[in-house]
Amino acid sequence: MDTQTTADPAVDTRHPLDVATSLTATGPDSWTGHTSKDYWAFIGQFGGATAATLLRAAREHPDRIGDPLALTVNYCAPIAEGPIRITARAAKTNRTTQHWIMDLFQQDGDILATATAVFAKRRPGWTHDVARMPQVPSPDQLARFPSAPFAKWVQQYDMRFITGSPLIGKTPHAEPQPAESILWLRDVIARPLDHLSLAAMSDAFFGRIFQVLGAMVPFGTVSLTTYFHCAAEDIPAGDGWVLGRAGASVFRSGFGDQSGELWSPDGRLLATTVQATYFRDWKPEE
Amino acid sequence: MDTQTTADPAVDTRHPLDVATSLTATGPDSWTGHTSKDYWAFIGQFGGATAATLLRAAREHPDRIGDPLALTVNYCAPIAEGPIRITARAAKTNRTTQHWIMDLFQQDGDILATATAVFAKRRPGWTHDVARMPQVPSPDQLARFPSAPFAKWVQQYDMRFITGSPLIGKTPHAEPQPAESILWLRDVIARPLDHLSLAAMSDAFFGRIFQVLGAMVPFGTVSLTTYFHCAAEDIPAGDGWVLGRAGASVFRSGFGDQSGELWSPDGRLLATTVQATYFRDWKPEE
Repeated sequence: MDTQTTADPAVDTRHPLDVATSLTATGPDSWTGHTSKDYWAFIGQFGGATAATLLRAAREHPDRIGDPLALTVNYCAPIAEGPIRITARAAKTNRTTQHWIMDLFQQDGDILATATAVFAKRRPGWTHDVARMPQVPSPDQLARFPSAPFAKWVQQYDMRFITGSPLIGKTPHAEPQPAESILWLRDVIARPLDHLSLAAMSDAFFGRIFQVLGAMVPFGTVSLTTYFHCAAEDIPAGDGWVLGRAGASVFRSGFGDQSGELWSPDGRLLATTVQATYFRDWKPEE
Repeated sequence: MDTQTTADPAVDTRHPLDVATSLTATGPDSWTGHTSKDYWAFIGQFGGATAATLLRAAREHPDRIGDPLALTVNYCAPIAEGPIRITARAAKTNRTTQHWIMDLFQQDGDILATATAVFAKRRPGWTHDVARMPQVPSPDQLARFPSAPFAKWVQQYDMRFITGSPLIGKTPHAEPQPAESILWLRDVIARPLDHLSLAAMSDAFFGRIFQVLGAMVPFGTVSLTTYFHCAAEDIPAGDGWVLGRAGASVFRSGFGDQSGELWSPDGRLLATTVQATYFRDWKPEE
């Protein structure tokens, strides 16, 4: 399997995300895997696939307790196509929470991502939703976003925009446009939702700067933090649809942020996410 | 200074936050410090002071480039009064960004906090504010929140609530109340704003669950992520006031989240922050 980087249904019946995040234990706290062509981005692998792979290393660790609660991934450098190596160790295990430290390397030993995660055992108890899911049409009433011209990772998702569908031109809008997008998204190839797919989806919102500018600029995620609001058994089976809402608060001198929410169709907040981003100013040559 | 845990103006002219976050290098990547009685919380030290101390370890490292962009602190266990030990190392240094890994220990060697940070060199460039500061009365038109009955750390801040002033009773409200609070806050003892004080203030919003319930329950921050939107030289000198807005999106089976914004009085977004929290359900005995 070491050279199997694209999931070919003829030889591999696993979902592309399961292939992309597949890990083999090589020691008590170490794992090897391989980047995925299915989740390729502009430069390097889609950050959401990398986040899911780092989370999976902790999730598959024999010492793991509970389910993912918080995940932070810092992207140190683009990941090249090829094998990867992950270390994941439980820094501290409490009665109901467990703190993880993960790192991702490639052949030359240089670190490509650092990450931390908190896993937690939830006990049934008081529940209160402050945020409410936006009222939106159902996915079958909406057109599918034409993903073919975009990076491979985009083609892994069926996206149906309610507001903030990307309008990317050759030159920026005269005035910055709203940063918000609301869309349904799910895996193109059906796969039951879990914390891995939610981790990946938390990075599946297009860079808000493209939305605001209406033009492409060099852009990347520097740091991604996702909070998971469901235990594994509480993630609705459903049909895989998740309602996403993305926004941003500021773009300032090369760095900005963006935020996102992921909702189940029955109105349950599954995950919230923020990211710190870098960008370069738009130039006619680009 | 090793036993000096409370800043006494008679013997120490430094600001309590500078005393609380004071570090002595003990090796290329290691530091010692001491907890602060001035920033004591219910159990252990105020998480904001701990976050600022971890950030300071990276900031004071001789290899550091740029200014804080992103900070994540995972609180593994309460910090007891006494000496602390911090390790801080640059995992990866790029041209404009630098990735840090920090850990905090106490005497017995057990890890009490893990953290990561990204520092960045900002170059002047395109800037666009998506979020806008709430329109609010100025601090001199508002009453100061009576902090005396609260934990020591609360007494380090002058807080002036515009909305969502804490109303904590013996029993919860009949119905959950809004999670939002908007307040001015600044250090009681004047201190120029910097990334350290912003890191501390990012944890200075009272637990949103108290606001929603109107009653106290066992509560703590599990993980805190703060994004800084200003280079050091762009943090307004001003008079120390920062407008804070705090909210939450969900409380579910023992774990929840909260979010915050910190604005300069001239309407500049200085920092945004999220945290994953734990809580226990309210019980009459507590």
